Amino acid sequence: MEEFRIVPESLHNDLVTRAYQRRGYSAEEAALATRMCAEATRHGNRTHNALKALHLDHLFGTGIGEWNPGAKIDVRPSRFPAVQHWNANRKIGQAVAYQAFDTCIELAEKFGVGVVAVDNATHYLWGGGYAIDVAQRGYIAYTNCTSSLAEVVPFGGKFPTLGTNPHTWGFPTTEAIGFPIVLDWATSTVAMGRVQQLKREGGTLPPDSAVDHEGRDTRDPNAVYALKTFGAHKGYGMALLNELFGAAIGGSLPTIRNRPGAPAGEKTTASFYFQVIHPEAIRTDHFAQGRSLAENLTAVIRDILGHGNENSMLPGQPEAEGAKRSAKAGGLLFSNAEIAEFAPIAHECGADERQWQPAYFPVFQP
Amino acid sequence: MEEFRIVPESLHNDLVTRAYQRRGYSAEEAALATRMCAEATRHGNRTHNALKALHLDHLFGTGIGEWNPGAKIDVRPSRFPAVQHWNANRKIGQAVAYQAFDTCIELAEKFGVGVVAVDNATHYLWGGGYAIDVAQRGYIAYTNCTSSLAEVVPFGGKFPTLGTNPHTWGFPTTEAIGFPIVLDWATSTVAMGRVQQLKREGGTLPPDSAVDHEGRDTRDPNAVYALKTFGAHKGYGMALLNELFGAAIGGSLPTIRNRPGAPAGEKTTASFYFQVIHPEAIRTDHFAQGRSLAENLTAVIRDILGHGNENSMLPGQPEAEGAKRSAKAGGLLFSNAEIAEFAPIAHECGADERQWQPAYFPVFQP
Repeated sequence: MEEFRIVPESLHNDLVTRAYQRRGYSAEEAALATRMCAEATRHGNRTHNALKALHLDHLFGTGIGEWNPGAKIDVRPSRFPAVQHWNANRKIGQAVAYQAFDTCIELAEKFGVGVVAVDNATHYLWGGGYAIDVAQRGYIAYTNCTSSLAEVVPFGGKFPTLGTNPHTWGFPTTEAIGFPIVLDWATSTVAMGRVQQLKREGGTLPPDSAVDHEGRDTRDPNAVYALKTFGAHKGYGMALLNELFGAAIGGSLPTIRNRPGAPAGEKTTASFYFQVIHPEAIRTDHFAQGRSLAENLTAVIRDILGHGNENSMLPGQPEAEGAKRSAKAGGLLFSNAEIAEFAPIAHECGADERQWQPAYFPVFQP
Repeated sequence: MEEFRIVPESLHNDLVTRAYQRRGYSAEEAALATRMCAEATRHGNRTHNALKALHLDHLFGTGIGEWNPGAKIDVRPSRFPAVQHWNANRKIGQAVAYQAFDTCIELAEKFGVGVVAVDNATHYLWGGGYAIDVAQRGYIAYTNCTSSLAEVVPFGGKFPTLGTNPHTWGFPTTEAIGFPIVLDWATSTVAMGRVQQLKREGGTLPPDSAVDHEGRDTRDPNAVYALKTFGAHKGYGMALLNELFGAAIGGSLPTIRNRPGAPAGEKTTASFYFQVIHPEAIRTDHFAQGRSLAENLTAVIRDILGHGNENSMLPGQPEAEGAKRSAKAGGLLFSNAEIAEFAPIAHECGADERQWQPAYFPVFQP
């Protein structure tokens, strides 16, 4: 098993916050952006940590003058009290997402359901992190967004015109089973990062995950031209859904999103959709056997994983186990390679880069 | 190509309404139940037509005294104005679903979003039909429900503890592209009906669609013990979602749903979740190039299906083509075998069964 070392969360957060501020973000933006980076690592998410977040900002954000540090969010005037439409003015996604879900919760407390749709959005890093947070606070969370780049072909197509467009749901099952059930995945079978990794390390892609230049299925990472959606036409429909929400919210053509050289008058920003349902608003007063809502959820989940299904897992379980490991470690767990990658970030923002040597951090004993 | 004959819609509707009333349903219930049967056939849906609807009522409904003709819906008192919780008291699903979506639309007109959650529900036949209707009226529709029987194993499991639990979305794209985009599918790879058909006709199942008694993958319809979810853990999560919504709304253990011999004090009914979003509530005032909402949707959809993707289809397109065919025919299209199956239904309710001979109906010339 890979070796992980324990990095004090305060050290991680100080560095990442400093890196964001160095790039022009306000203290509040940097703090919220960092918070989601820490949550990702705390929950064992190794693809959407601070390294990825800062890299995204470099590729699509302040690195090319596209994201807008200190941007104010404009709330559009509306006659609909349970739904808000925001123009985020390319404010950093983590700050927008935390605020949007907070607003959804306020609306759900008042109306039973609350929606915030965000135009001129950037990237919110990891939908699962917000959904876990909202579900732990007792609400049903849902979010989708249009992904940075169109890398996925529509079902039966050969040119990438869809983002890897994720969907994320969080269900407040902590009282029932100890952690929130969270679904959080891209609508492509694999991520483009996985293709790059297989190119570097050798190996073949899973079946039905990519096409070559001619639109033919390929499992050779070197022949990959574009990704396929998961679950054939069903995953395709779900990827399309984010583009439709995005198109309504204010996004434009997926093939020019985050690409240089868009025609004048076009928009190249992403769109976010956030929704919270208050479970008290959709629950019965008459659960079977006089059970409470939490007891009923426990009973249903036990039934699903019973009867010989003990090898099945619940979505959200790996993240919950990650959080337990981090709590046991008393810090954030990073691999040696990851820790080494923080050194240039420390250098970038004038922090002590020598601090970021793997040997300085204790090895985690699981 | 299979031969279809044109059945006058009024003849079909008169017979189906009479059959429902014969079984005890009120005139209003029978009319709404029949309306969805006609919509299914009109849109080319051959699995969820009147024959299936009346069979479902026979298997799970009045045939065994479980559904409750003439039942009144109780709306639960609630402090949440945009969300309603209904106890349907086992009223027939089509009547409940039409009414629930109408209420969602009223709520969405007022709040921007509206939700109706339904406890003690039966079966609403075809989610896609309601979503098409709501989308054609200009709104974003979503519904899920727990399916009649647990026939699907959780990912990695071997015992069926999940329904084929469908998800349905409808998007108001009629102005943009001529028809609503509609996603409507079960979370199993195939339906149990497909397994039965392959048993009768011979043939093998698609890969990854079913398991045998030991939980091993099988493509032999005779060895099938339970179905698998589509898209591995992703489809599993989506099947689970309906069970979680169902458990919150008031449903009970999936393995006893619609099964005889449930323990005393248990519930065996299904649950429905309906949601409508007003597109005006989530739209920007600033689409690129000064486009309208419909124009922006058109541009995005053209981009997705352009660039050599002309062989791709949009979800909802087959249903739209079905509706066009039916309009051209000036009636509902049924196969000879389907028409023959209406004869015993006519017999059951004292109508003229001799009328239901294929030769009496003109062949449709596409």
